[in-house]
Amino acid sequence: MPVTSDPTSLIEAVTSGDRRALARLISILEDRRQGHDEVLPLAFSAARPAHRIGITGAPGSGKSTLTDALIRVIREAGDPVAVLAVDPTSPFSGGAVLGDRVRMQDHVLDDGVYVRSMASRGHLGGLSAAAPKALLALEAAGFPHVIIETVGVGQDEVEVAAAADTVIVVVTPGWGDGIQAAKAGILEIGDVFVVNKADRAGADDAVAELRTMLSLGPGTDWEIPIVKTVATKGSGAREAWEAVAAHRAHLGLEGMDRARRSRRRAELETALVETLRLRATRMTASGGDVVTAVESGELDPWTAARRLADR
Amino acid sequence: MPVTSDPTSLIEAVTSGDRRALARLISILEDRRQGHDEVLPLAFSAARPAHRIGITGAPGSGKSTLTDALIRVIREAGDPVAVLAVDPTSPFSGGAVLGDRVRMQDHVLDDGVYVRSMASRGHLGGLSAAAPKALLALEAAGFPHVIIETVGVGQDEVEVAAAADTVIVVVTPGWGDGIQAAKAGILEIGDVFVVNKADRAGADDAVAELRTMLSLGPGTDWEIPIVKTVATKGSGAREAWEAVAAHRAHLGLEGMDRARRSRRRAELETALVETLRLRATRMTASGGDVVTAVESGELDPWTAARRLADR
Repeated sequence: MPVTSDPTSLIEAVTSGDRRALARLISILEDRRQGHDEVLPLAFSAARPAHRIGITGAPGSGKSTLTDALIRVIREAGDPVAVLAVDPTSPFSGGAVLGDRVRMQDHVLDDGVYVRSMASRGHLGGLSAAAPKALLALEAAGFPHVIIETVGVGQDEVEVAAAADTVIVVVTPGWGDGIQAAKAGILEIGDVFVVNKADRAGADDAVAELRTMLSLGPGTDWEIPIVKTVATKGSGAREAWEAVAAHRAHLGLEGMDRARRSRRRAELETALVETLRLRATRMTASGGDVVTAVESGELDPWTAARRLADR
Repeated sequence: MPVTSDPTSLIEAVTSGDRRALARLISILEDRRQGHDEVLPLAFSAARPAHRIGITGAPGSGKSTLTDALIRVIREAGDPVAVLAVDPTSPFSGGAVLGDRVRMQDHVLDDGVYVRSMASRGHLGGLSAAAPKALLALEAAGFPHVIIETVGVGQDEVEVAAAADTVIVVVTPGWGDGIQAAKAGILEIGDVFVVNKADRAGADDAVAELRTMLSLGPGTDWEIPIVKTVATKGSGAREAWEAVAAHRAHLGLEGMDRARRSRRRAELETALVETLRLRATRMTASGGDVVTAVESGELDPWTAARRLADR
């Protein structure tokens, strides 16, 4: 049976568990394909808010492997789970580097696991515009847990992960001195810390260093847990998931709702920029003389932008 | 003598070498302070195109130390040099983490060196909007070489470095397996590779691995050099700079000009987004009822954005 192209039927198929329909919905939203404007409000109405869990950390810290281990723990408990994996795109090829996403194929026959990769560039309005729509689609499909895994530690990736209800920051023993961690700017956004590859030398030092650095931060009523894992063997994954569940309990319905309200406002600003950017692209395409003057260096790009916007 | 606030006098002061005027000009452009729209075209007219050198690589690879070593080599040759150092901003504190920028204070008494830090977030329109303006100011001040050093490997940072004429990618021995490098998405943008910390074990392996990975890329008529450095001791810095100079010679005037044309077009699109984003912020501020509906979940952010944009 072909996936329907009627917006209402498409959303009905998604909410009733049709994974092909879900894939189609995400593609429509992500690439702004035909029907984008119609399905978006329908998906919004159908979405049942999930617990959004962000996983971030330096490249090579084992985020994908940890995600994989968490999926196993969640599935053992019987819950469905979705993963939005944000991959940096090669600036040269323009395609997403799927890397060890391949490993997740272990779950390909499990209907309770849905993994979707998203390139971190090439979206109109940026990653921060495309990711919330994909998350909305996953929530319309009714997943109670949605893991957002980012490969990079760039501004956009961190922002996407930071928009989660619970943020896991993954580090490894010997992850570099304090300044590097502070530079990466990921210390302050973690609700749960995981020291992965904890069978390597220096794991306890990393825990101790983390604890010291976290103690310098602003005190809150949530005591940030630090969990040691060896994700390749699955060890510690249960404890990491328990820490995530504890954070959710700590937030409570009220905390989750508060976060959602401010997230929606941020999404509105992002959506506005996306809408205006579309108009900007049209303006550049139709602004021949101004574009030529900019390229040749006669006119500066900023004055040109004002002129185009005023047209 | 106070720094003038008259746009024309300010630009004259900048072009005649007044460093306080330069600092002021960058602040006006970066923060869109009063006079922004007036000084921008003047700075554009005054700018003498520099050789823009981007330095990128994973956190901890020693980019700042290498920059420092390159500055010494450039100064020994007698040329002035400017550095735009892009620091990730702590999402919590909102301030840039200056880290080892402090080391650059060695050059503080040298009028031929100008170092400016720029936070990688908090700019209207993003880093990609703010950085080109700062680079324009440095070119108005007449620096023949401008180094753009990025701390992160995020999308924005890489894009800013990739907009340079010559891009140096810094790696270290044991920098992780190939997949991690490909993930970081920085392999394809390097014109010169530096294996820093080359006194550590595995430096030759890193060079060999790099050479293999680069040989898989598209062949061009520029053979990408791989230079070993120990930036803390300055060793290899001269060779690295020679490789940069060779790349510039390879580009030639024609290549530099071609790059500038496409850069200007990209800047125009960025400037348009910035202009439209300013209008978006005003729209959100004045769109009380729509914003309330979005926050409460009655209206989806994307439909709301269209309504605001149509007003």
